[in-house]
Amino acid sequence: MEGKMSNHIIVFGGDGFCGWPTSLALSRAGYDVTIVDNLSRRKIDVELECESLTPIRPISIRLKCWKESSGRHINHVNIDVSLQYNKIVNLFRDLNPMAIVHFAEQRAAPYSMKSAFHKRYTVDNNINATHNLLSAIVESGLDIHLVHLGTMGVYGYGTAGLAIPEGYLNAFVRGPQGDPKELEILYPANPGSIYHMTKTMDALMFYYYNKNDRVRVTDLHQGIVWGTNTPETMMDEVLINRFDYDGDYGTVLNRFLMQAAVGHPITVHGTGGQTRAFIHIRDTAKCVRLAIENPPSNGDRVKIFNQATETHRVSGLARMVSEQTGAQVRYYRNPRKEDAENNLKVCNDSFLKLGLDPITLQNGLMAEVVDIAKKYEYRCDRSKIICTSCWTQDISPDHTGSEVPVLSQSIKTLPEVEVHLDPIMDSNGTIRIN
Amino acid sequence: MEGKMSNHIIVFGGDGFCGWPTSLALSRAGYDVTIVDNLSRRKIDVELECESLTPIRPISIRLKCWKESSGRHINHVNIDVSLQYNKIVNLFRDLNPMAIVHFAEQRAAPYSMKSAFHKRYTVDNNINATHNLLSAIVESGLDIHLVHLGTMGVYGYGTAGLAIPEGYLNAFVRGPQGDPKELEILYPANPGSIYHMTKTMDALMFYYYNKNDRVRVTDLHQGIVWGTNTPETMMDEVLINRFDYDGDYGTVLNRFLMQAAVGHPITVHGTGGQTRAFIHIRDTAKCVRLAIENPPSNGDRVKIFNQATETHRVSGLARMVSEQTGAQVRYYRNPRKEDAENNLKVCNDSFLKLGLDPITLQNGLMAEVVDIAKKYEYRCDRSKIICTSCWTQDISPDHTGSEVPVLSQSIKTLPEVEVHLDPIMDSNGTIRIN
Repeated sequence: MEGKMSNHIIVFGGDGFCGWPTSLALSRAGYDVTIVDNLSRRKIDVELECESLTPIRPISIRLKCWKESSGRHINHVNIDVSLQYNKIVNLFRDLNPMAIVHFAEQRAAPYSMKSAFHKRYTVDNNINATHNLLSAIVESGLDIHLVHLGTMGVYGYGTAGLAIPEGYLNAFVRGPQGDPKELEILYPANPGSIYHMTKTMDALMFYYYNKNDRVRVTDLHQGIVWGTNTPETMMDEVLINRFDYDGDYGTVLNRFLMQAAVGHPITVHGTGGQTRAFIHIRDTAKCVRLAIENPPSNGDRVKIFNQATETHRVSGLARMVSEQTGAQVRYYRNPRKEDAENNLKVCNDSFLKLGLDPITLQNGLMAEVVDIAKKYEYRCDRSKIICTSCWTQDISPDHTGSEVPVLSQSIKTLPEVEVHLDPIMDSNGTIRIN
Repeated sequence: MEGKMSNHIIVFGGDGFCGWPTSLALSRAGYDVTIVDNLSRRKIDVELECESLTPIRPISIRLKCWKESSGRHINHVNIDVSLQYNKIVNLFRDLNPMAIVHFAEQRAAPYSMKSAFHKRYTVDNNINATHNLLSAIVESGLDIHLVHLGTMGVYGYGTAGLAIPEGYLNAFVRGPQGDPKELEILYPANPGSIYHMTKTMDALMFYYYNKNDRVRVTDLHQGIVWGTNTPETMMDEVLINRFDYDGDYGTVLNRFLMQAAVGHPITVHGTGGQTRAFIHIRDTAKCVRLAIENPPSNGDRVKIFNQATETHRVSGLARMVSEQTGAQVRYYRNPRKEDAENNLKVCNDSFLKLGLDPITLQNGLMAEVVDIAKKYEYRCDRSKIICTSCWTQDISPDHTGSEVPVLSQSIKTLPEVEVHLDPIMDSNGTIRIN
């Protein structure tokens, strides 16, 4: 029986920052991996006139090196998932995958806000990509588990002290006779950018296809990823992972560490009072594997995991990096439309129960990021460090380039938030009144 | 001051079943109306090899007749709203409309379920159309009120006895200290088809653009439309409105009345226990005008109206039409994946407060539909009456054509639901526990 089961996993978007190390980790774990990627992220590098700080190699070179390093073969197919629907259906029928991992979306909030073109590209690309995968699963007639990389940002950050549960919220409304009635609902979506909006729309498509067609879906609401390399990407420099440091694609902690390494002031947007959830890239790869190996059963609702291991206030991260490196912290006008300050608690019981042993900032991997940044500092275009995208027309960009005004804001005195996640729900995942 | 205000309204999708009478009503009321329509609905007629029962005329002929009949000019621009973004921006800048009405979506649930092609077309067309309009409003820099035709179907029909409020639900969750906290949330979406899914996704785009860019939006969650003509479309036969009777685009009550008129058995899907909300086409046009004339203020959240005037159980409608006409009622396997039976209460206070005097089934307009159907019976292709779309692969279509099996199901004995809408919320629109 086991011999007949498919061992194949297709990673859509498997050439990107999360997709590449995930693909290698799955391959090393013994799965047959096919990467589908139209190389859109590399093409956006061309558009933005910016490259990964690390010298990533063409995918064919990467895959040749992987074969030599690991003895494992990964195939690459160039398909635009948002457009080339029939190729997806044919691929499913050819490979009969046990699972597919869906990273094939434009994933930068600032990029999604650059202009009408970028808003429209993000919506068109992300929605059609997700929908094509769902429709192709149904059309193929195969029982394929879809694992999707979502974002913690779908929840928004206005939680008013509530811990964010894993996707579903137990709420009460008054019933017809005035009696409280319990409703389990999808956590109300509150996206903070066009990119995040597409992920909230994805959630509705998962909900519908799961309800109507019983498609098995796991949606991973991921925190902000930090770190660069994984055990697999370190096996050879040719396998090195992407490192984005620019204002559009760079993620906050990696940017701070890189800025410190190259002697650029640490760029805090606004007060730095924003609290966000984080995860190390190595844990991303581990979580995706855990999700694949613990799929929902046929007929189960969409499984939603919060894929985050700790929360931090941005100002706290800046201070920590500054203290460790001596780098200066500068405050910039916030290009985003968001609350200046917030607290955040996140439930992540599901992955902990499945055995995830989280990598946290205390584990010493920050130094590795600094080392990488120093090693490849010669590749850095300092004019790309500052974020030039802005959320609305009345939030004017500071400037382009590195000559930016320093605002007189200072870190507000909100108490530091908990580093450890603190669910308030009971063991059944239920929030109860009384 | 008034002289400087724009009097222009653009009706996107103004050639369709709801768009056409709405455009004429707005024109007659003194607004300058421009219709944007790519004639996609007429092209779908070509695809389905079926036409409106009424002989609708080309749009240029319609508009020429309208000028002669009313003395009012309506312009038509052929733009694919899902694709031709720059034309939309230019049109906004040229016309500076006070409001736009957005009917420009594929609007039939059965059509959206016919095949992967139809699912993908509906998602791609509807999502990009809505997003292009929102993005173009922001890019234009103009303060344009967007009035969108949504559907009651976004709420789903599993309300467990609750009256459906107008878009927003007051719910309670347990706060950090165990105290109940009140949350106002978008009513949890529960779409019943790909078409309905796109409308729930629209709602998230409205929410986001309203939050980030302060776009003023009114979303009309409309019930099932019945009736054909309005005072304006009756001014000349050339102005006659579309009448869909086929299994994809025909709406239930109009189909029953037409079936009775042409001597076809009344086609009940499943038990007929489904309860749905209804509105007459004349009230559609009135409600859109009321929405335009009572816009949200700048900074207001998305205004959501339930655009429905009564609820009926399908079996009750079938029985009523049968009693009035002597037509036979036949029960067919339900092609939809939905609850066999449900109750439904809907709040529609907003339009009633704005002065809407609803047209109900008691008002005698059902006879008018029968008269129209009899007059144009010669145009009916009886092979198109049966619905051939089905929601999942395991719900096999009965047949194509008119030779269909009669199931042995009979009407269940659920009590008849209230015809009058019965809100249970207090005057502030709040549901409270205690």
